[in-house]
Amino acid sequence: MFQRIAAVLLFCGLILSPAYPAAVDEGMYPISEIMKLDLRSKGLEIDPAEIYSTDRSLIFAIVGVGATGSFVSPDGLFVTNHHVAFGAVQAASTRENDYIRDGFLARTRAEEIQAKGMTARITESFRDVSAEVLSSVLPGMDFAARTKAIEKRTKEIVAQTEKDNPGKRAEVSEMFTGKTYILFIYTYLKDIRMVYVPPRSIGEFGGEEDNWMWPRHTGDFSFLRAYVAPDGSPADYSPQNVPFKPKRFLRIQPRGVDEGDFVFLLGYPGRTYRHSAASFLAFEEEVRMPYVVDWYARQIDLMEKMGAGDRGVALLHASRIKGLANTMKNYRGKLKGMKRLGLVERRREDEKALQRFIEADLERRERYGTILTDIAAVYDDNRASFGSEAILGYLGSSVNLLGLASTVHEAGIERPKPDLEREPAYMDRNFPRVRQRLMLGLRNHYEPTDKAVFRELILKASKLPEASRIKPLDEALGGDFSETAIGGYLNKMYAGTRLNDSRFVEKLLEMTPGELAKVEDPFLDLARALYPDVLELREKQKARRGALDPLYARLSDVKELFLGKGFIPDANGTLRLTYGRIKGYEPVDAVDYSPITTLRGVIEKTTGREPFDTPPALAELFEKRDFGAFEHPRLRDVPVCILYDTDTTGGNSGSPVINARGELIGINFDRTYEATINDYAWSEEYSRSIAVDIRYVLWVTQKFGRADFLLKELGL
Amino acid sequence: MFQRIAAVLLFCGLILSPAYPAAVDEGMYPISEIMKLDLRSKGLEIDPAEIYSTDRSLIFAIVGVGATGSFVSPDGLFVTNHHVAFGAVQAASTRENDYIRDGFLARTRAEEIQAKGMTARITESFRDVSAEVLSSVLPGMDFAARTKAIEKRTKEIVAQTEKDNPGKRAEVSEMFTGKTYILFIYTYLKDIRMVYVPPRSIGEFGGEEDNWMWPRHTGDFSFLRAYVAPDGSPADYSPQNVPFKPKRFLRIQPRGVDEGDFVFLLGYPGRTYRHSAASFLAFEEEVRMPYVVDWYARQIDLMEKMGAGDRGVALLHASRIKGLANTMKNYRGKLKGMKRLGLVERRREDEKALQRFIEADLERRERYGTILTDIAAVYDDNRASFGSEAILGYLGSSVNLLGLASTVHEAGIERPKPDLEREPAYMDRNFPRVRQRLMLGLRNHYEPTDKAVFRELILKASKLPEASRIKPLDEALGGDFSETAIGGYLNKMYAGTRLNDSRFVEKLLEMTPGELAKVEDPFLDLARALYPDVLELREKQKARRGALDPLYARLSDVKELFLGKGFIPDANGTLRLTYGRIKGYEPVDAVDYSPITTLRGVIEKTTGREPFDTPPALAELFEKRDFGAFEHPRLRDVPVCILYDTDTTGGNSGSPVINARGELIGINFDRTYEATINDYAWSEEYSRSIAVDIRYVLWVTQKFGRADFLLKELGL
Repeated sequence: MFQRIAAVLLFCGLILSPAYPAAVDEGMYPISEIMKLDLRSKGLEIDPAEIYSTDRSLIFAIVGVGATGSFVSPDGLFVTNHHVAFGAVQAASTRENDYIRDGFLARTRAEEIQAKGMTARITESFRDVSAEVLSSVLPGMDFAARTKAIEKRTKEIVAQTEKDNPGKRAEVSEMFTGKTYILFIYTYLKDIRMVYVPPRSIGEFGGEEDNWMWPRHTGDFSFLRAYVAPDGSPADYSPQNVPFKPKRFLRIQPRGVDEGDFVFLLGYPGRTYRHSAASFLAFEEEVRMPYVVDWYARQIDLMEKMGAGDRGVALLHASRIKGLANTMKNYRGKLKGMKRLGLVERRREDEKALQRFIEADLERRERYGTILTDIAAVYDDNRASFGSEAILGYLGSSVNLLGLASTVHEAGIERPKPDLEREPAYMDRNFPRVRQRLMLGLRNHYEPTDKAVFRELILKASKLPEASRIKPLDEALGGDFSETAIGGYLNKMYAGTRLNDSRFVEKLLEMTPGELAKVEDPFLDLARALYPDVLELREKQKARRGALDPLYARLSDVKELFLGKGFIPDANGTLRLTYGRIKGYEPVDAVDYSPITTLRGVIEKTTGREPFDTPPALAELFEKRDFGAFEHPRLRDVPVCILYDTDTTGGNSGSPVINARGELIGINFDRTYEATINDYAWSEEYSRSIAVDIRYVLWVTQKFGRADFLLKELGL
Repeated sequence: MFQRIAAVLLFCGLILSPAYPAAVDEGMYPISEIMKLDLRSKGLEIDPAEIYSTDRSLIFAIVGVGATGSFVSPDGLFVTNHHVAFGAVQAASTRENDYIRDGFLARTRAEEIQAKGMTARITESFRDVSAEVLSSVLPGMDFAARTKAIEKRTKEIVAQTEKDNPGKRAEVSEMFTGKTYILFIYTYLKDIRMVYVPPRSIGEFGGEEDNWMWPRHTGDFSFLRAYVAPDGSPADYSPQNVPFKPKRFLRIQPRGVDEGDFVFLLGYPGRTYRHSAASFLAFEEEVRMPYVVDWYARQIDLMEKMGAGDRGVALLHASRIKGLANTMKNYRGKLKGMKRLGLVERRREDEKALQRFIEADLERRERYGTILTDIAAVYDDNRASFGSEAILGYLGSSVNLLGLASTVHEAGIERPKPDLEREPAYMDRNFPRVRQRLMLGLRNHYEPTDKAVFRELILKASKLPEASRIKPLDEALGGDFSETAIGGYLNKMYAGTRLNDSRFVEKLLEMTPGELAKVEDPFLDLARALYPDVLELREKQKARRGALDPLYARLSDVKELFLGKGFIPDANGTLRLTYGRIKGYEPVDAVDYSPITTLRGVIEKTTGREPFDTPPALAELFEKRDFGAFEHPRLRDVPVCILYDTDTTGGNSGSPVINARGELIGINFDRTYEATINDYAWSEEYSRSIAVDIRYVLWVTQKFGRADFLLKELGL
């Protein structure tokens, strides 16, 4: 769940993804690689060309919505996850019309309401621009300069392409680190509307407790519709707009699938780190992930205590706790999986074999002999300074008011620059979303929590060794980190700031640098004082990346030599295909998970309390065994969720699960706990993804939602 | 786990089993009923007579040891659970020789050491004494008098039988409530010694976390040996004693069993309440079990807080927490199961049908018309006074010093009486164990906890309604239940008592009533003040029982009429047979439990920390795949635990699991969480029991324990 890609990098966000290692193999195939797969022999019954290489190929039915969706009617109707549409549904909800609690159904086109903040992108074309990008790197450039040169050239290509293709959006995606760059051209649809969203008690059934778990019983789907201007071009919301006509939409197979059936997925998986160096995996396992798990657990604990006696406060924290808990559980799953599979050790063994291969030949040794140790040295450097880098990062991302102040301050510096020279977050194409996010964060701001979180970070900072102190904090507190001193400092900060006033923040964001410089606010002052550290850190990260990129590019070369075959690049938010079969697994000794859950399981889990508060009307339908056309013949019940061994990661949320004949039979929404490890390695035994079965989607829509007209639009 | 029967009822212990409802059907067959079963058609391959009706029948291989064990060699060697021998192993352990931690192995007979507190009983014969017992009930007796008359006659029969059978022990067991009484004659062996006990990290692997759970990986077994005097008669421990020669011992089948195989168990199941009245089940579900769960959870919470910073204190509480947690989890499982199966509702439906049957005939209506409402009225009375009765009971059982004082006080009254007239706990046959238990309780006494528990009960008592106040407490506190008043009262009590001194308690137990009356101690004073309430409560319970007994006897009659068949009596601590098959189950939708776990699962669960701290030597054997003769051919691993659908309950711990040819293939030690409901109902879907597989017993003994000579004694 919540596998969306965070599209915008804010403040020091980069700290948390300290490496972009090279990619290899396993099963998230770029469109350009599908032809190399003999999918017919795997079980596909249609011509593979129908997937990717005709004017009406399946890829034109796929939409990127942060995560993924797919068109299911000629009139722009598409289906994705409930959790993908959640933010838009929340934004449309009011006290009187609580669509989160009650669900939403538009009985006519006129009743369809705007899904605020949602866009839908369609991949139109792509081409290799590696040579063009890499020609920007000049001999003798240092590491940071190398990274900046590539960034600059990429921005130029994007700008030129968008100029040549009005109405389209261009993106350059790095496929193999430091090696291959593909330019994608996308259509972005901006008028998206809600059609049918089930109530949370169906769409989010099981909530955080069932998150990353099997057996699963969540009806995690929503229907939305994309609109365009009457002339067919992408346009902002307008009552005059008309439904978008996709080049292709998916047919639905209402009889679903059964155990063992071939399936494939198309979607936009976010980021994987397969075949990255053992030194990176060790850094993740030993340093970064345990740190994040601890810090998130601490924040959740603080927030839960704050909200314990006060429902209003608890509600303010709900969505943040959900986000932190989601990542925390994911990381715990990963750590468990890394340990169980002995991942670092295995990778080290692989690298030893590779090293022997390298050393067996003089020329190879000359060329590649130190790659692995050079890569390890970068991560060693990262380890050494991780403590202070993490705190600096979290000051901006965990403390609301300081994050706000830092963005305001940096906007004052970046916004006056020409667009192409700005930090990405402040470019015209991204800044509106950054602002929106800031304002949303302020809406859920609760001072005592923000203070407590800030206090924790100050305490952490107070324990840093001399060499990596955060000076502005030391100065702010005059070196006195006693409880009283910190308490007094925080009281002064929060009493003196006006950044908790959204109108004031709006005003600041409009100011010229000169005006802004005159504003006095304790958080702005601290942000100004921290800014040199932030810049230094960013420079350091660019240097690390500049060092790693060519190392990983060469690692990829020598691995190809060693293994005698090419690889599939790591996931990077671009369109991919993955295939597999409907299949259960054995999570532990003597326990078998079968791959299809049923309505009976929903009733079994129902307690009447969130997150297991099945609507009574649904329970009644089960009592009456009113399964309509959607009963599984063997299970004698409506299938709810299905399990399969395809290769997915965050960003695949909402991906269509498609059968051998190219028909939609499920909507992907999660992986199992054991499959959180997918980001680092795919395991035949444990890597399983989870979809809501199309039969449950249709049954809920028809029997519970009483939206027969929708089934009609789906051609049923 | 921990399914031992509490043999001795102390103080107000009876409060917690407020009813002894009638018994019917399902599968714990008394020896006398085995002949009615067509076991050969069920899968048994030996002559059923071999089980129960020859001089060398299998029942002579079964020993009662609180729970159950079985002889496995001609020299008195028997096997039971690790948790059954736990207390004796603990008693034999010292700081230097920690047999709990390290396990125990006697390489020669001379090295076998005494298993203190353990006895082994063998069922020798039985006969129906119903007429004799019931002839003591005279017309016009009130309910309490009825109960007392039956108790008195029973004691007389026992005394006479033991006089006629020197060296044997007699017990009268009620089979059908108020209806059938069987006199059993037992041999009691009193010199039991430890032979091989695996370390706790094997014998209790998984601890409380895995308790009542599947999949299970616990090596819950111990080997012990029974000794007798050189002339073959039962005798207390003496170096001169010789191994006991059982009439029969079980042969071991080292190749074990596989899924689907027929098995049966012999053992001493404690107490079930099958086909009891719906009003009793409702009382259990709505009143008693939730109360106990809450109270136990509260006590555990208190004890855990006390022990949080102090390992020594934590150790003092360890075994009590374990006991409370065991019951709490069991009750939670029961409550969940009752809800899932809708047990009360189903029983009510059954009773409606029975009531219709009764009312359909004038004579039946006359005779049985009000039975169900009369039974319900008794439980209604129980509900009304449950609050104060429970507190009175827990004052004696949860507050160490008050329990001690109460026993000392009552011993002063009961011990001077003729033995047959004493309350059972104070009879010569039981009193030594009562004393032992008291002294053991004192060893783990920790004043701050005892005080805190007492404080909780005073607070509970302070909230009782006027009609059911506990007067002596009201008086002790002068009606002031403020924090200060309670605190002051408790400080005075604990500062002024000497009951925390075991030598002082020993002395008190030797005193004449006259001497005892002169001893001043605040806890003794309170015990004296509470004693009339305790007696009144006991009287009330006897009256309830006197009312219920004949009602249940008649209910049983009319049910037999209605159903047209006889029943199997409820479990009552007497020898029973139950049969079934090796079989997994589906605990929830899409999850299958297979019925055999393996060593791989032990390794999977191993964390290195208790209770998952597998000995490294065992993990090494797995690494080397040194499975010897005990590898399961299909699973390619050593089987560890097995699951089967026989009908068991507490007391079946240590029961031999026997295959179709009468060979030992496992040692029963637990039920699944879903099978805690067994006490009230047996369910084909969910009732599963758990044994350690004989192959794991043998593999651990041979490969890990290096006790080849034991395998030789077992005839392997």
